[in-house]
Order: sequence, then structure tokens, then C-alpha cells
Amino acid sequence: MATKKSANRTAPGLSSSLRVPPGPVDLSSYDPRATTGFGGTKEQGREALAALAPEVSDWQERLFAEGRKGGSRSVLLVLQGMDTSGKGGVIRHGAGLMDPQGLRITSFKAPTAAEKRRGFLWRIRQALPEPGKIGIFDRSHYEDVLIARVRSLVAPPVWNRRYEQINEFEEELAASGVTVVKCFLHISPEMQKERLQARLDDPTKHWKYNPGDVDERQQWPAYTEAYEAALEKCNPDHAPWHVIPSDRKWYRNWAVTTLLLETLKDLNPEWPKADFDVVVEKARVEAS
Amino acid sequence: MATKKSANRTAPGLSSSLRVPPGPVDLSSYDPRATTGFGGTKEQGREALAALAPEVSDWQERLFAEGRKGGSRSVLLVLQGMDTSGKGGVIRHGAGLMDPQGLRITSFKAPTAAEKRRGFLWRIRQALPEPGKIGIFDRSHYEDVLIARVRSLVAPPVWNRRYEQINEFEEELAASGVTVVKCFLHISPEMQKERLQARLDDPTKHWKYNPGDVDERQQWPAYTEAYEAALEKCNPDHAPWHVIPSDRKWYRNWAVTTLLLETLKDLNPEWPKADFDVVVEKARVEAS
Repeated sequence: MATKKSANRTAPGLSSSLRVPPGPVDLSSYDPRATTGFGGTKEQGREALAALAPEVSDWQERLFAEGRKGGSRSVLLVLQGMDTSGKGGVIRHGAGLMDPQGLRITSFKAPTAAEKRRGFLWRIRQALPEPGKIGIFDRSHYEDVLIARVRSLVAPPVWNRRYEQINEFEEELAASGVTVVKCFLHISPEMQKERLQARLDDPTKHWKYNPGDVDERQQWPAYTEAYEAALEKCNPDHAPWHVIPSDRKWYRNWAVTTLLLETLKDLNPEWPKADFDVVVEKARVEAS
Repeated sequence: MATKKSANRTAPGLSSSLRVPPGPVDLSSYDPRATTGFGGTKEQGREALAALAPEVSDWQERLFAEGRKGGSRSVLLVLQGMDTSGKGGVIRHGAGLMDPQGLRITSFKAPTAAEKRRGFLWRIRQALPEPGKIGIFDRSHYEDVLIARVRSLVAPPVWNRRYEQINEFEEELAASGVTVVKCFLHISPEMQKERLQARLDDPTKHWKYNPGDVDERQQWPAYTEAYEAALEKCNPDHAPWHVIPSDRKWYRNWAVTTLLLETLKDLNPEWPKADFDVVVEKARVEAS
């Protein structure tokens, strides 16, 4: 399998600009309205996203082909963020550019009793992408140090231990060929209010609204603190966090898709060589 | 949940033109180059497919919303056809128009020993779409009366019994809210030869080629017979077969996507009503 690194990287890329540097994290220093790495308007941002489609789906198919022919590599995109930050929107508009056969998308809700009994990472492991696939997590194991911490769903020593468990888990993923890309979709509380109001104003969006969203919203400072802790404690080079400014939907969709594209290029999967004799097979087909 | 039927149907629709009528099936009477229900050129066909995107994704989202709010309905698209008939192409170009979050795609390979021990329908049941989703099977339980019959993978009494087992299974699916739409992608042996040659001529397509494909190709008459039997014996109104002329890729993609759209319109899912007090919630968000 291809092992070359960075062969297709020309510039440092968006991932290095949005990457959370090691050390303490202060989310108030990140502007949710920024458009880092993109100079144009909203309209141009949408066009730029659409223009990524051929390239991103070509790379996706190469990775898929590699997986079909014995390769073990895959990609896992982890999406986290407050309600209305746009985890679903990124999947619809960004991942939607790719061949759905190569995606494995999992949306994590509150764990069931049976899932809880098996440890918080059990259901995460069940949802990992097969070789060649791009896995996408809409929420993830990070909920177990976010809502679990904010809402005291488990005792402090339990959630406290989880940071290290997550680090060990993600180290294991890296060793087994899963490239993990983590994105925190960063919105302002004002933008969340606007989006919740928009959901209430539009009857075709009522199904997306949950009265519990307001209760979570009231814990904004506690969630911010929990996110800062997660972004600080679980941020190794092999599974880095990125803060995606997400008050502008078009930028958010373009940025996450660009990160995915950079990741695929960096893996640089090559079209598998034929594992049969091409000349012989041409003759067999001709004669058939 | 919505129970209205056909509220959005204006014309009899493509599904009735491509539907296999009850009774014996003679595939030689179906033209694989036909463009039933479409009057235009290849270019117009591609444009017509792209033009379906907004409508098909709107209906998909309604079904998804219904599923989120307690609905039990789902759709299952079953794709069958000889190698190179385009099962993957339909998913990429047709299903690719939809939000990948609402899809559940399963590609069935030869069953493992563990799967075989559990009966041929076990792994099929594992892959059924959740409520609100559109399931897509790239190959399916029909392989168990196709390759299993042609290659004598099981004794004749075993595969013979399966037609009835499949009918019972699909009846159960209908009763539990799964609308099954079955498509046989019909290509000519000449077109298959052309497509296999194209795969051999293009190194970026070698990974899709398998020398075993030629062996299967040599059984073309036996497969035709097995397909005719399956299309005749398992063709109830609640899980009908359609023959999709598939020598022209653009027509095939447009036709299957149109069938999906007609199915969704026929189910007519409505946006779920709010299960909370909208006025109260507006005030809560405002105050938050």
C-alpha cells in the first residue's frame, strides 16, 4: 500500500491554520465568524465547495479501491459542537459531495443501558470505518467527557479517567491505520439563539427542535469549559483537533470538506496494481 | 403518521411502465437499450437526473423527519444485475443526490461461514433500513436463488424452498412498514463485454476487475433463467420487480432515481407536527 506522505501537499494547508496548538485552550480567543484561509464572499464560498467535488470524490475512490485490495487505511472525521452548530449540515453539504458507498456515518444519541454496561468506547468501536472508508461521527466518544461531565452523568473520577482512555484509544486507531480528524464546530451563543428561533419559526423545521436544547444552552459556560478541557487533553498529532469557525454555514462546510480533502491527499492512496495478468484477461474477455 | 396514498401522483408514473407484470418472465422480450418514459438525449438525461436532486432530497428529508418522530416507515431499494450492470453507478449517481445521513447502503459479498450458519436471511435482516431511512442493497437475498442456483452452492430442494421464504420475508417487511422496490439492471452480453474490456484498458479501473467475472459471464444463459425464475416467483404488488434497461448508463441512473422519487411521493410523508408548545418555546429561547 502507498506509504508516501505529503506527496500532494503544496502549501501548509488549511489544517495547519485551524489546528488547535498544544497547550491550554481558550475558546474565547477563537472568532466564530472568521473565514480563515478563504478570501471570498458567501456566494464564492458555495461555489468553491461545489468545485471540490470532483477532486474529493477522486481521492475518496482511490482510498476505497485501496481498501478493496487489502489496504487497511481509513479516515475518521469526528464532528462535535453545540446544538445547531451544523454537524448535520456539514454531512449533507460536504460529505454529500462524495460517493455514499464509501462513507460510514454514525449519529450518536444518548447511550442505551446495554451500551453503558459495555463501557463508553464499545459502541464507538462498533461504528469505526472499514478499510478504505471515510467514517463520520456526528457526536462521538467526546460526549462522554462533555455532557457526561456537565450533567454529572457519571462521578468526576469516572469522566476524569476518560481523557486518558480516549488518548489510548486514539493511539490504537492511529496504529491500526485510522486517520482521525477532529473538528469542533464553533458558534457563538447569539448565533445559536438565531438558529433555534429559525427552527421555531419554520414548521418544516419543528422536528429538529427539542425543548431540551434550551436547557443545554443554559449550560453554555460549563460546556465551553468541558470543550476546552477535551481540546487540551486529547490533542495528539495523530488525532488533532481543529476549531472550525461556524457562524457562517458556507465557510464551515467549505472548511471541513477542505480538511477532508487535505487528509486524503496526505494519505496519497494509489490505484491498486492489477493482481491478475492483464494480457491474459483481455484475451479471455475477447474470447468469451 | 401520514397514511394518504398517491396524493402526489399525477401520472401513472415510470414505475408502472417498468414494473414486471405477474406471470412468466421472458427477459429476451425486454430491450436493454430502451429509454422507456424518457424522450431526450444522453445529455438531456443527465440534466434530468441532476434536476431531480432538490425534489428527491426534500422527500427524503420528510421521510427522515417522520422516522425521527416515531414513524416506522422506510424504503428498501434492491439492486440486482450481472457484473458491470451498474449497481454501484446507480448508488453513486442516483443515491448520491440525497443526504447520506438518510441512506443505509449495504453491499453483499459471498456470505461467511458464520453468516451461512444463521440462515440466508439473517444478514439481510441485520442490514434493513431504520425507520425514516432509505436502505439500498447492492445485491441481496436474491443472490441466494441466483448464484446459489447457478453454481449449485446448495442442493436444489434448498434453493427451491427459498422463493417461498423470500415471499414470506418480503410480506413481513411490507407489514412492518418497509416499502420494497426491486430493480433488475438489464444489460446485454455485448455491453458487458465492452464494459469488462474498458475496465481492463484503464489501470485506474483494474481494481474493479475480477477474473471470476469471466467465469460468471460464461454462465449467462443459466443466470438469465435464474433471474426469470426469481422475477416470476417473487413479484408481489407490495414488493414488485422492475426491469431497468441498463445498456445506457444515463438512462439507468435516471430511471432508478425516478422510481425512488415516485416511491417517496407515494408514501407522502408529512413534516411532523411540533410535539411541544411553539409559543412557550419561543419565549424560552427569547429569554435564554
